[in-house]
Amino acid sequence: MASILVVGSVAYDSVETPFGKVDHALGGSATFFSVAASFFAEVKLVACVGGDFSQDDLKLFQSRNIDLTGLQRVDGKTFRWSGRYGYDLNDAETLDTQLNVFADFHPQIPEAHRDCDYVFLGNIDPALQRQVLSQVKSPKLIVLDTMNFWISGTYKSLKQTLALVNVLVINDAETRQLAQEPNLVKAARKILSWGPHTLVIKRGEYGVLMFQKNSPDPELSAFGVPGYPLEEVFDPTGAGDSFAGGFVGYLAGVDRQDTRAMRQAIIFGSVMASFNVEKFSLNRLKELTFTEVGLRYKEFRRLTHFDDLEEEY
Amino acid sequence: MASILVVGSVAYDSVETPFGKVDHALGGSATFFSVAASFFAEVKLVACVGGDFSQDDLKLFQSRNIDLTGLQRVDGKTFRWSGRYGYDLNDAETLDTQLNVFADFHPQIPEAHRDCDYVFLGNIDPALQRQVLSQVKSPKLIVLDTMNFWISGTYKSLKQTLALVNVLVINDAETRQLAQEPNLVKAARKILSWGPHTLVIKRGEYGVLMFQKNSPDPELSAFGVPGYPLEEVFDPTGAGDSFAGGFVGYLAGVDRQDTRAMRQAIIFGSVMASFNVEKFSLNRLKELTFTEVGLRYKEFRRLTHFDDLEEEY
Repeated sequence: MASILVVGSVAYDSVETPFGKVDHALGGSATFFSVAASFFAEVKLVACVGGDFSQDDLKLFQSRNIDLTGLQRVDGKTFRWSGRYGYDLNDAETLDTQLNVFADFHPQIPEAHRDCDYVFLGNIDPALQRQVLSQVKSPKLIVLDTMNFWISGTYKSLKQTLALVNVLVINDAETRQLAQEPNLVKAARKILSWGPHTLVIKRGEYGVLMFQKNSPDPELSAFGVPGYPLEEVFDPTGAGDSFAGGFVGYLAGVDRQDTRAMRQAIIFGSVMASFNVEKFSLNRLKELTFTEVGLRYKEFRRLTHFDDLEEEY
Repeated sequence: MASILVVGSVAYDSVETPFGKVDHALGGSATFFSVAASFFAEVKLVACVGGDFSQDDLKLFQSRNIDLTGLQRVDGKTFRWSGRYGYDLNDAETLDTQLNVFADFHPQIPEAHRDCDYVFLGNIDPALQRQVLSQVKSPKLIVLDTMNFWISGTYKSLKQTLALVNVLVINDAETRQLAQEPNLVKAARKILSWGPHTLVIKRGEYGVLMFQKNSPDPELSAFGVPGYPLEEVFDPTGAGDSFAGGFVGYLAGVDRQDTRAMRQAIIFGSVMASFNVEKFSLNRLKELTFTEVGLRYKEFRRLTHFDDLEEEY
């Protein structure tokens, strides 16, 4: 089992959906990622929190055996985000963002983490993402997350970071925006010419699409899986990060990066995202068992399986 | 091989997309359905056209061995629709609708067609759909299409028709509207309590989701498949009807209605829809070969396949 270095945000979220609300609940991209990934591999978290960060939340990380050597505690308050979702649960409306201690975050990778084989660069300034990469030795796989804010604000810098990574995980609107191309296949071809060999496109309730380069073959290979149909979706916050956690977690867990493992990793990512949205904040992932994870993987097989054709076709 | 009775519209469409335009091209729900279904089974078309309907278009139906005994030619002009799509190609903006001879269409099922085993009720007034059902003997499978216009305008009548059919094929917005429920699983449960045992939800570029009742088990079984990622989409007109044609066509072709066949039928529907959008009007389906259909079915296997887990999971 290989280990994963994750760099990103740890936050307190206040979230309102048509089904309820939570105040100052544990959140942040690196939090959802770490907890989801911890089901599969050893996770080393690099992030920063303020003096207000609670002992209970520290204990949650510790209960998942997440290495907190790289978690900086600094004077000030932890990053806070508050948002609201309507009935369609697709887009969050941000009500307030207070960067607090996150505004001056400069990731310092502890010496003991620099030889990590798997690196997940959470959604932070692309220049900081490159600072992380300059501190690590020679990872087997570097996975990048980003968002519309960095695509529109730091396009050139983001392209420099893209040139250094293997896998990009973004949603479909971000894919179109980054490539400046409405067709997803053309957009994928363009983005994959800039560095990554794999593009993973998150589509919310519609599932995930993965494109991979197989040079010298000019054709991209594609893999798609629908979202798991859920009867109760309480809080979509962190779904994308839980997806990334399951995805990178499984790859590190089996320590393979071939297409077979990549496809299975997409399913584990989808499994973790589908659990995460069933309750507010980390509440579902906290109580989740590995048996449930395995069962839902099998559910994904049942959801998507169809047979080959008989002879006559 | 069983045969299919299809009742619906034959039209002349004028369509504009960012990639070009066509004027007065052959279209209509029953047209796309029939041509797609004709790759798999014998199709008997019941529809009406005006005196302006061209010999070339008649020949297209004949070239696909579509039985035209039930095609009424009446005085007046054929149904005309004109619409426009933007870059996202999801929603058509209707520019003009001229029902013409279709306004007085009362489906007459020829005696020879009344013992058809498979019936597809295209998107027409639910009261007319019931008139069709009152003329047929005892089909093995009745598949229904409808749209927002009938859901909002003839809700009660539509529910009466629903009680008489086995499979409903609609899109996700129509599913939510019909059930008055934003969650798709809950919406499916509600709709399936009204009659049909199967609900097929078309989601455009995101693929298809199928829910089935397995009484006495209260859990619905679900099957999902992503859309085929296409690099060139020229004209989405008729994609839903081509889907239905491939779906019902395959079921009639193998003359089975078990879940295994239903899932394979969903793939053939997706195959036919994916070809249909590659060119304007019927231009792609016209030139399509059965070998291409079989190859794309295999592509769908490649697109969606992932392996079971190893022992350790």
